[in-house]
Amino acid sequence: MPYVVIMAGGRGERFWPRSKMAKPKQFLNLIGEKTMLQLTVERVKGLVEISDTYIVAGAEFKNVILEQIPQLPEENIIIEPFGRDTAAAVGLAAMILGQKNPREVMLVLPADHYVGNMRTFQEVLKSAVISTNRGDNVVTLGITPHHPETGYGYIHRGELLETPAGIPIYRAIRFLEKPDYARAREFLANGDYLWNSGMFIWRIDVLREMIKKHLQSLAEGLGEIENSLGTNQYSSTVEKVYSKLPKISVDYGLMERADNISVIPCDFGWDDIGNWTALERYVEKDELGNILHGRGVMLDTANTYVISNDKTIAILGVEDLIIVNDRDSLLICPKNRAQEIKKVVQALADEGFDDVL
Amino acid sequence: MPYVVIMAGGRGERFWPRSKMAKPKQFLNLIGEKTMLQLTVERVKGLVEISDTYIVAGAEFKNVILEQIPQLPEENIIIEPFGRDTAAAVGLAAMILGQKNPREVMLVLPADHYVGNMRTFQEVLKSAVISTNRGDNVVTLGITPHHPETGYGYIHRGELLETPAGIPIYRAIRFLEKPDYARAREFLANGDYLWNSGMFIWRIDVLREMIKKHLQSLAEGLGEIENSLGTNQYSSTVEKVYSKLPKISVDYGLMERADNISVIPCDFGWDDIGNWTALERYVEKDELGNILHGRGVMLDTANTYVISNDKTIAILGVEDLIIVNDRDSLLICPKNRAQEIKKVVQALADEGFDDVL
Repeated sequence: MPYVVIMAGGRGERFWPRSKMAKPKQFLNLIGEKTMLQLTVERVKGLVEISDTYIVAGAEFKNVILEQIPQLPEENIIIEPFGRDTAAAVGLAAMILGQKNPREVMLVLPADHYVGNMRTFQEVLKSAVISTNRGDNVVTLGITPHHPETGYGYIHRGELLETPAGIPIYRAIRFLEKPDYARAREFLANGDYLWNSGMFIWRIDVLREMIKKHLQSLAEGLGEIENSLGTNQYSSTVEKVYSKLPKISVDYGLMERADNISVIPCDFGWDDIGNWTALERYVEKDELGNILHGRGVMLDTANTYVISNDKTIAILGVEDLIIVNDRDSLLICPKNRAQEIKKVVQALADEGFDDVL
Repeated sequence: MPYVVIMAGGRGERFWPRSKMAKPKQFLNLIGEKTMLQLTVERVKGLVEISDTYIVAGAEFKNVILEQIPQLPEENIIIEPFGRDTAAAVGLAAMILGQKNPREVMLVLPADHYVGNMRTFQEVLKSAVISTNRGDNVVTLGITPHHPETGYGYIHRGELLETPAGIPIYRAIRFLEKPDYARAREFLANGDYLWNSGMFIWRIDVLREMIKKHLQSLAEGLGEIENSLGTNQYSSTVEKVYSKLPKISVDYGLMERADNISVIPCDFGWDDIGNWTALERYVEKDELGNILHGRGVMLDTANTYVISNDKTIAILGVEDLIIVNDRDSLLICPKNRAQEIKKVVQALADEGFDDVL
């Protein structure tokens, strides 16, 4: 059975004030009772053993991970000394897992995405495992676009390669950066372009070969760390080497450079839950488009989303706002600027209000 | 020296969530450290003894009054069993004060107005006391209008009657109800129309005669209460009689009917502090017109007024809002609807959220 490596190193600032430096998006229960990380672990249940589940994150998140996934063996948390983008993180994981079973398949999943249809999701993964288990290719999951999104990268798919377990897998011709609106519309109309979900499936040895070929300095750094594995020098070596590793994503560092990439077009209700407005899709609105999580009244108000932890809320005569009243902070902004909440977090940091960040 | 009767029976709902049923506007420190009631008492210092200061209010406000004005003799709080408008309230006060000194002058002042220039205010009152002390007239204070306000009643002034202590006093020809905008503009252009401030000066005996003449049923009710004065039947008599008294204001019941009314045009920085937006005049704004009382940041935001008791506030991309984050509630509305906060209070009551009202 394959390994899963869950990437839990994100900052998730766009869910401030709920998300904090100490508890970013992946550790929040934004949809339903379970946290994004818990949902991610649950999503591969039956496909991956919990003992084969690994989570990459900063040391500061070790406790929250063990709290949220109590059945996870503590040694399955792979500590990044600091964020060095995804290529270094998957490389470190592959190096560690390679000690156990160097030819096993490894699934890479972000900890903070949402998937609506778990059955289809698992069918896709099974087929990707079959494909990568027998070949030297990488399978990526591309999401069938539903609108001309400018916030994601795209994957241009080519010819059909195979159909293991009934799921068609195509050649990935090219990885493309976030397009402008006109190009995004072209991509949508064309039909051969998929959203890059950041989910990858590969054999450990295949990934390590790719790193050697395309990211020489990363391969060297990982080699140095590998030599310290099992010794009491490990932590200090990771600490020392990690800062010198190239800071590059899997997409830029590997996917754009390699020619063994394939893609499965997926439509399993994927959502990266990018900011507060994304949550609206999962809750019912009143006839004026309002949502009120909490106690209060909304008068002459339309299309406004209120999430309130405490206090009684009274809104009169506003439109298209997001209002998040959390334990220590209150955020108010128009929905169409929810993407800019990072600016707010930066401004609060500049003012020295670190206790709420 | 004259008596002062401070009318503290108002509901002040437009300052919700700061104002509560148990603590309306007159008991709040909206401007500076002192409450509106404390400022009102202080404003007549030197002109009226504290032992001659009387406050009319509901029984539920007795404690807050004694807390805020600790030097006030407890028996100087005149309890209204319930609100029965201003004619009944001043009538009750005049009946009680009439036992002490029936020919003394009595100033009637609302507890919840603001006066910027206390010296001019006292000069006006001194002149009004001279005039009413020697005549059978009522002096009212009319505010020189600065804009075509449609929210106040107006007083049409006539010829100059006298100039005691250098302050000119005019005949009041007529009391007019709140005008529409076109009429308010005419009033402003004409120059002979003044805002009705609700402040009255009269001798106790003159007022009692006016009540006998113009409000027969009020006079009868007050007579019944007077008969119980000093007996253990007083409270129950007030309670019983009060509900039968006519519910009418001094303006409608007396001023519009009488022909002995004079008016002093005043310009002493009067403000009835009608709602949250009124407070903006007393605080400094930043270059974008924003005010932030509390801790936080405001980005790409203009002309927005934030009053926050706790929590860190983060506002992005809004305009012209009032945001009041109080102990138990959060209010958000456009400034131009601040006058409608009563609707919000009603809606909260309808929902049964009485604990925040």
